[in-house]
Amino acid sequence: MNTLDVAIILFEGFEPLDAFGPAEVLGSLGRLDGSPVETRLRFVSTGEGAVQGSFHCTVRTETLSQLEQPDVLLIPGGAGTRPLVRDADFIEAIRPFAERCEHCLAVCTGSAVLAATGLLDGRSATSNKRAFDWVISTRPQVNWHGAARWITDGKFVTSSGVGAGIDMTLGFVAGQYGDAIARRIATDIEYRWNDNPEDDPFARE
Amino acid sequence: MNTLDVAIILFEGFEPLDAFGPAEVLGSLGRLDGSPVETRLRFVSTGEGAVQGSFHCTVRTETLSQLEQPDVLLIPGGAGTRPLVRDADFIEAIRPFAERCEHCLAVCTGSAVLAATGLLDGRSATSNKRAFDWVISTRPQVNWHGAARWITDGKFVTSSGVGAGIDMTLGFVAGQYGDAIARRIATDIEYRWNDNPEDDPFARE
Repeated sequence: MNTLDVAIILFEGFEPLDAFGPAEVLGSLGRLDGSPVETRLRFVSTGEGAVQGSFHCTVRTETLSQLEQPDVLLIPGGAGTRPLVRDADFIEAIRPFAERCEHCLAVCTGSAVLAATGLLDGRSATSNKRAFDWVISTRPQVNWHGAARWITDGKFVTSSGVGAGIDMTLGFVAGQYGDAIARRIATDIEYRWNDNPEDDPFARE
Repeated sequence: MNTLDVAIILFEGFEPLDAFGPAEVLGSLGRLDGSPVETRLRFVSTGEGAVQGSFHCTVRTETLSQLEQPDVLLIPGGAGTRPLVRDADFIEAIRPFAERCEHCLAVCTGSAVLAATGLLDGRSATSNKRAFDWVISTRPQVNWHGAARWITDGKFVTSSGVGAGIDMTLGFVAGQYGDAIARRIATDIEYRWNDNPEDDPFARE
């Protein structure tokens, strides 16, 4: 069976649900009866050992530089993204992985981190609606959309804030493996999927 | 300002979203502008160091026995609950915390772990609909409801599977601090709250 290798990049001040919502969807994909793919999730960071997200949530990580190229790269958001978008070492460290992966997903202000690599320039993307002005200011070369639950542009998929990451990841799964697979995952995790990427109840006015 | 101390009990094989969905809601409560309460979240386990949940998610924990009594105890579910309900040492370790806390929340099959303490006997509760027969079998003395997004019975609040934990925790916040506070959190985390505890799209037939 094919394996889908997923690397989730964690950093100081990441938002836990941004990472663990999508992780739940991708992990659940792998454990479906008759799943089309095996999934292997890795939590990684540019340092060694562990990183602390919001709410004192400290997660063990593997070191990004020692990682084989994953198929999917996931970048969560959180308060920690504020310094990261100006952290050239961090951005340089993740850029080759974002360049080479088959699919690159970013949740919430994780899209600002992804944008800092330059790879979103000229592409459509969205982000957290409560930090939207800041996100735009970090990389005006991106076509930022203020009303979208999530946006797919080529291999890059970006979502609105926190909770939208779950919807986006189900949408990603639907695009790759079919709508029925996404709905089976939603049923397994008893989650009401907001399946329309254009329906954004938290849209920026 | 008052502080709401929350202890989230982790164990080998816990389901990440069961823990981090509610954690996001309770953590976000504390960072609202003009929040009615400060929140302090602790991830705890009966052992020392760290525990690994599903999908290779390894989280650092404090030791339960060294913990001051929290106000809120949260018990996630996951495959790891299967052996735990028969693990007398574990159940004895969590029982005094479950007895003495002001509010005890359980997500998914975490309700089977809570039920194993005997504290749910004669009370109404719900759980994961895909493991429901097993849950009933572990503690038939509980009034298990097969159709409920979440159920509040006294200080005990139990939810359906995985995704329902977020809805339950918003419902808990609404009960404690008012509906408007719960809705502000949902907006902050761009989450569409399924706010009716009786509306269960995944109900057991």
